[in-house]
Amino acid sequence: MTDSSHWVLTLECPDRPGIVHAVTGAVAAAQGNVTELQQFSSVDTGRFFMRVQVQSGFERSSFEESLRPLAAYLQAAWHLDEVGRRRRTLILASRAAHCLNDLLFRQRSGLLPIEVAGVMANHPDLRPLATFYGVPFTDHVVLPHTKADFEAEVLRRVEAEDIELVVLARYMQILSPELCEALAGRAINIHHSFLPGFKGANPYRQAHERGVKLIGATAHFVTSDLDEGPIIEQNVTRVDHNLEVPQLVARGQEQETRTLAEAVRLYAEHRVFLDGHRTVIFG
Amino acid sequence: MTDSSHWVLTLECPDRPGIVHAVTGAVAAAQGNVTELQQFSSVDTGRFFMRVQVQSGFERSSFEESLRPLAAYLQAAWHLDEVGRRRRTLILASRAAHCLNDLLFRQRSGLLPIEVAGVMANHPDLRPLATFYGVPFTDHVVLPHTKADFEAEVLRRVEAEDIELVVLARYMQILSPELCEALAGRAINIHHSFLPGFKGANPYRQAHERGVKLIGATAHFVTSDLDEGPIIEQNVTRVDHNLEVPQLVARGQEQETRTLAEAVRLYAEHRVFLDGHRTVIFG
Amino acid sequence: MTDSSHWVLTLECPDRPGIVHAVTGAVAAAQGNVTELQQFSSVDTGRFFMRVQVQSGFERSSFEESLRPLAAYLQAAWHLDEVGRRRRTLILASRAAHCLNDLLFRQRSGLLPIEVAGVMANHPDLRPLATFYGVPFTDHVVLPHTKADFEAEVLRRVEAEDIELVVLARYMQILSPELCEALAGRAINIHHSFLPGFKGANPYRQAHERGVKLIGATAHFVTSDLDEGPIIEQNVTRVDHNLEVPQLVARGQEQETRTLAEAVRLYAEHRVFLDGHRTVIFG
Amino acid sequence: MTDSSHWVLTLECPDRPGIVHAVTGAVAAAQGNVTELQQFSSVDTGRFFMRVQVQSGFERSSFEESLRPLAAYLQAAWHLDEVGRRRRTLILASRAAHCLNDLLFRQRSGLLPIEVAGVMANHPDLRPLATFYGVPFTDHVVLPHTKADFEAEVLRRVEAEDIELVVLARYMQILSPELCEALAGRAINIHHSFLPGFKGANPYRQAHERGVKLIGATAHFVTSDLDEGPIIEQNVTRVDHNLEVPQLVARGQEQETRTLAEAVRLYAEHRVFLDGHRTVIFG
Repeated sequence: MTDSSHWVLTLECPDRPGIVHAVTGAVAAAQGNVTELQQFSSVDTGRFFMRVQVQSGFERSSFEESLRPLAAYLQAAWHLDEVGRRRRTLILASRAAHCLNDLLFRQRSGLLPIEVAGVMANHPDLRPLATFYGVPFTDHVVLPHTKADFEAEVLRRVEAEDIELVVLARYMQILSPELCEALAGRAINIHHSFLPGFKGANPYRQAHERGVKLIGATAHFVTSDLDEGPIIEQNVTRVDHNLEVPQLVARGQEQETRTLAEAVRLYAEHRVFLDGHRTVIFG
Repeated sequence: MTDSSHWVLTLECPDRPGIVHAVTGAVAAAQGNVTELQQFSSVDTGRFFMRVQVQSGFERSSFEESLRPLAAYLQAAWHLDEVGRRRRTLILASRAAHCLNDLLFRQRSGLLPIEVAGVMANHPDLRPLATFYGVPFTDHVVLPHTKADFEAEVLRRVEAEDIELVVLARYMQILSPELCEALAGRAINIHHSFLPGFKGANPYRQAHERGVKLIGATAHFVTSDLDEGPIIEQNVTRVDHNLEVPQLVARGQEQETRTLAEAVRLYAEHRVFLDGHRTVIFG
Repeated sequence: MTDSSHWVLTLECPDRPGIVHAVTGAVAAAQGNVTELQQFSSVDTGRFFMRVQVQSGFERSSFEESLRPLAAYLQAAWHLDEVGRRRRTLILASRAAHCLNDLLFRQRSGLLPIEVAGVMANHPDLRPLATFYGVPFTDHVVLPHTKADFEAEVLRRVEAEDIELVVLARYMQILSPELCEALAGRAINIHHSFLPGFKGANPYRQAHERGVKLIGATAHFVTSDLDEGPIIEQNVTRVDHNLEVPQLVARGQEQETRTLAEAVRLYAEHRVFLDGHRTVIFG
Repeated sequence: MTDSSHWVLTLECPDRPGIVHAVTGAVAAAQGNVTELQQFSSVDTGRFFMRVQVQSGFERSSFEESLRPLAAYLQAAWHLDEVGRRRRTLILASRAAHCLNDLLFRQRSGLLPIEVAGVMANHPDLRPLATFYGVPFTDHVVLPHTKADFEAEVLRRVEAEDIELVVLARYMQILSPELCEALAGRAINIHHSFLPGFKGANPYRQAHERGVKLIGATAHFVTSDLDEGPIIEQNVTRVDHNLEVPQLVARGQEQETRTLAEAVRLYAEHRVFLDGHRTVIFG
């Protein structure tokens, strides 16, 4: 799927006139052809965001060389990657299989540009599934007195295995503020409600009691402020008075599954940017 | 649209075996033919709800006669109406035209079985629109010291003009607990968010700040517990980071419009039941 | 999931007054309590359709005894089953894994009341997947001169293994008119377009060339009139000019997957009826 | 709504490297700031499409002066307009009010950047509606022997009144190939089905007979090849076996209304491009 002559450049910096012209100038200097280009100037924060896909015969180092002085001038954070490169991903899971099954199936089918380095779970139930997909699986006893050890192991692996993305696939445990901070902007959680409605525990029960006509799911960046992280993707589905809580759970799982997969795809393709507490998505 | 031989019977009572059989027995006794039938037993409240449409050559009074002893036996609240009868409706409005325009257009087009007896507004802006549709319009100064008078006038008209439904079509003022109580189960409001998210003022600003990916609208019964009334209908639409608050407002108005119209249709067709704090909708 | 005192009764017959009353009478005679009831009188065909769920302490045979004379009187085709019983299912597949993976995952998760007796494929690729889920898998060379043998084997298994439903999970081969006839009303196919648009081969290419803004999938009963069988379920998703055919395929597979799963659920729960060339769905 | 320092530039030309850089160079030379930028290279046709919004204190003529040589070099068709300028629109209508009512309401509410110069209808029914909105209305007898006169009058007004867009708001008559040709790329029709399904007459009847589970509407450019014009926007809504044709019509009208309004908005904002037989939409 990757193509060593097809690049994706992402860049963000304080907004000012002329950025697109300057960046596409660097692309032209590398004899590159733009295959996709999106940009956004945030009125709220004064930040500028850009994503460009470029086809070019240049060496990556030459291309980077031509971008470096420009980025410095623009005070820009930037990143260059190959289009379609599978990004190193670590999945945290618990007992629920639906999100993990979907992510692993999509990875194997070539539908998600991720390479799952491993699954870490606080229960052994999902081992056969991970094993079927050839993904290393470890289970851990995560209790109050062992949680710090578990989180240290997560961080150790993130560093040792070049993990670019941590996905909480219905992990169901609250991460410590320290781990949230350490993974800021690199960890995605799926919440089983249409946030900001029904934060906290048992969202489907809450939804049933409130009698809503649509239930949903929200994929968001993990922050220490629980269920308040920047939203990446949301979906809903229609429900009615006939459905009891277990049926809401079943319907909701479909939304969780597709919402998390889409958020992971967007992230893996470098389409998600943080703009203060909001996200910019170049979908 | 009405048909004096086509009836809609609604009934609710404590749940017990045999209700459908008993009610359809009364229908059969009236030589009626069932054209639509829906029923629901609420696990949460132990209540039973039923809506039957019946074609019958019987007189209404004869039909009612045959239902009365059964209803007494079942301790049922029940109601018999002609299918398609336009229900007497009073609309409260303010300055925003979109919901009022849609309701009046649908009434005239025969798409909503309501007969709008009048529009009462706290601003004169919508008079031409109401007048175009031949609907009596009054505007009222609704200030803290005149609010009681206005609400008394609403209640007076509800009684004097046989109003069955009061619609708050973006009326934007909070009704007193007394008026909410007096109109309980007969007044529908449209809230410009996907409740329970973004209660209170400026929901689109809240939605923008939170960075949600879907915005919506909620039609609910009016209760004194603001934005907490039983939900009748909800819809959402997809938005992205490009949209500023005014654009969210514009997109949201489409959802408000269709959501309120659908809730009014469901109510007018006797398809909405209250089951505790939730609604049962026979859509 | 099954409950030997919770029954689902389905019935269809020529329409006439009094059927609901009569059927609920038989239910009452069995001291049953209705937990769900839906009925439909088809204006087009004059047929009546009904599905009732009943909780009753009676023996199945006693219940059937009480229904038999009524059904004879109504000239009704009827069926009694336990709610939640897993229905015996045979899946035909080829190389594409997405639908098979989803069906097997849902079966194991208890989200679909089916028991997959086996997967028959014209390629060996999906063997590991079926094996992981513990489902017997056979692959067959299906060529012009062996197709009759293959189809005979399908029919043999349907009879020998009490198969109630045959699912073509992207099987990609056309069944002979004889097999279609033999499986009439018991075989469901997923077509990768929003029928009746884009019949035939390469529907995503057709959709791309036509420039549609939504693509979809259709689950339908198999008939010898290709892509013309009665429709059970359909879904669409939004696309735009950016998407080339392979990306349309990827997006479309999600619609195929959920559409087929929903059709199978509806069928397995006895919610699908044939009304001439259309279906009645008690969802 | 317009802002004489906020421009929208649209441009299309044969694809080649460096176009974005060159165009943004011209923008920079005009001391402009890009507020929105979208571009697309069509693999199918080798064409390049671009839409840029620019804030600049320059005179329009100076800006155009700087664009002219570049456009010549690129062999580009281009257009410069003020953001938000209301585009001169002529509406053709018949008897159905829903689309016309919606377009006129949105125009007055400032939700659609169009200025409706007039409504031409083949029936007088919609005169009061047009008059209420202050829009000139003429009705014409359009019969086989008068059709040529009517069409000549349409063309005359298009030229005399600087009409930029002709909207067929359920006009229901087939335009002659000559008129289609004369209005190519400037006339939008709303078809009451999800094309390419159910072309031709009575699409809702066709949809009912086929038993589809979703019905929809399609806004497309008018071409002489009936119901085959490039698609601009489509929407669908879920239906079931309960709905007879008149109810499908009612549900479908909501889709027609919103689909046409969205297509008109996209066109009026210069977001629609023709790429062979397909459209490129910068939504």
